[in-house]
Amino acid sequence: MFLLTYYYDNTEYVGFLNEKRTGIIPALNVLPTVAETLDMVGLIEIFNNIDVEELKKAIKSCKEEIKLSEVKVLSPIPYPKRNVICLGKNYLDHINEVKSLKNVNSDIPQKPIYFSKIAYPAVGHGDVVDSHSHIVKQLDYEVELAVIIGKECKNVSLEEAEDCIFGYTIANDISARDIQTSHGQWHKGKSFDTFCPIGPYIAYKSNISFPPKLKIQSYVNDELRQNGNTCDLIFDIPCIISDIASGITLYPGDIILTGTPAGVGAGFNPPKYLKSGDRVDCVIEGIGTLSNTIK
Amino acid sequence: MFLLTYYYDNTEYVGFLNEKRTGIIPALNVLPTVAETLDMVGLIEIFNNIDVEELKKAIKSCKEEIKLSEVKVLSPIPYPKRNVICLGKNYLDHINEVKSLKNVNSDIPQKPIYFSKIAYPAVGHGDVVDSHSHIVKQLDYEVELAVIIGKECKNVSLEEAEDCIFGYTIANDISARDIQTSHGQWHKGKSFDTFCPIGPYIAYKSNISFPPKLKIQSYVNDELRQNGNTCDLIFDIPCIISDIASGITLYPGDIILTGTPAGVGAGFNPPKYLKSGDRVDCVIEGIGTLSNTIK
Repeated sequence: MFLLTYYYDNTEYVGFLNEKRTGIIPALNVLPTVAETLDMVGLIEIFNNIDVEELKKAIKSCKEEIKLSEVKVLSPIPYPKRNVICLGKNYLDHINEVKSLKNVNSDIPQKPIYFSKIAYPAVGHGDVVDSHSHIVKQLDYEVELAVIIGKECKNVSLEEAEDCIFGYTIANDISARDIQTSHGQWHKGKSFDTFCPIGPYIAYKSNISFPPKLKIQSYVNDELRQNGNTCDLIFDIPCIISDIASGITLYPGDIILTGTPAGVGAGFNPPKYLKSGDRVDCVIEGIGTLSNTIK
Repeated sequence: MFLLTYYYDNTEYVGFLNEKRTGIIPALNVLPTVAETLDMVGLIEIFNNIDVEELKKAIKSCKEEIKLSEVKVLSPIPYPKRNVICLGKNYLDHINEVKSLKNVNSDIPQKPIYFSKIAYPAVGHGDVVDSHSHIVKQLDYEVELAVIIGKECKNVSLEEAEDCIFGYTIANDISARDIQTSHGQWHKGKSFDTFCPIGPYIAYKSNISFPPKLKIQSYVNDELRQNGNTCDLIFDIPCIISDIASGITLYPGDIILTGTPAGVGAGFNPPKYLKSGDRVDCVIEGIGTLSNTIK
């Protein structure tokens, strides 16, 4: 099951992809008692109170579809309640390649490195990423597996962590390397407007075996740059969820970016930073492709 | 003019303090055309479209007050759209005192150091701060002047920055020093549940001369710990707003914490970290006192 937020007839809706991924079944058609204004966070919350197998049947038998080509796909969660929580240096091969970056310690972290990224205003599949070229000189991409939290949770064990997940999507952790390092902490260099494209769809957790062992790749103008596997996370998903939720309540719709594998622009010699007109495709097996163009 | 969010009769409301600061004039009584569910972000947005002097007159002449003692004062902005943006090391005396902290470079920063702090769930004046004592061993306080943004702004000059401000309040940037330093980036050590008490009131900008030159103090169990002045910011408020908004859109209700002066627990030898039962009073001249007790 794949969920999406889309713009159609001057309104934002949430819905489900059909099996061929060519059409959308609006959530309102299969969950008739909900409000017209239902958003993705609301939809995720509903999943805690319904029979998901019954919903899958209803989606399969629903005949009223909208063609995917007729809508604008938006970020699946356009209004996240809080900033996106991100992990830095969570793939060994990426740690080795960033040695060239100033002020970035290249040891394997003893504990997860967390920072946050502003994701409002939201950017989705097909949207333009602003290069902020008057300020940013080293624009970079990072494909990441994004975990979407499904229920309120706090102080969960490693064993309980899987149960807190709603699903998965793709994110491009766009980074201004020069700003990221020159300001001491990474927050600003990661948080410029449009620096957090997410999507196109959320894959419901039952689509993906746990822990996820998925090919994760990025391409710039069709050139393969990153080519890893989500099974190579240094801190794996149960560890991440259990560690963040130790003292911090997670809510339905919270987004966690799990880190990026080797092959970012800064890792090449000379560096291959993004420039105006470049297209970045972030691909994760079993989820899809998130494409964005640099303004 | 002082604005607040409060809980009364099982509902959250926004309103204004009377002149003696003993009673509340509900916003609904002086802005009769707005929705019953008006929140502080909505109220801030309204200020861009009304005659504020007329509103002040209406508040002054309104006879229907609620006693302040009959309500629960909440964080002025209980549902911030995004995480709070914070500055680290923005007072020289504080930079000098943190030399004892591991992994904290004690040079004067060349550029502002930004990190973010989760402020949802919200904590206000009088609320309890959880010590998270099973994880956190070095719990600390930091009184800070909080700037509340009044209108959507991006790429503003130093001269235009003042006009983006709605008002000011007080924040206690509660910090787990051990977690802050052991995870590389500061985000987690600053973002445990209840670590961002804010309030009690927002002082509207016309109450405070610009740039703010206000005594800023903190007390732990009535012992004066921090004693500075907001005129001693290394990066001043126009510089902060102009620099953040360079590439990042700011929205009405966004909260910026401007840094803390010397006297934090970590700065003493031996350190004076917070313990269960401690009361922290954060005081800023012309705004008020934010008091919280450690659980």
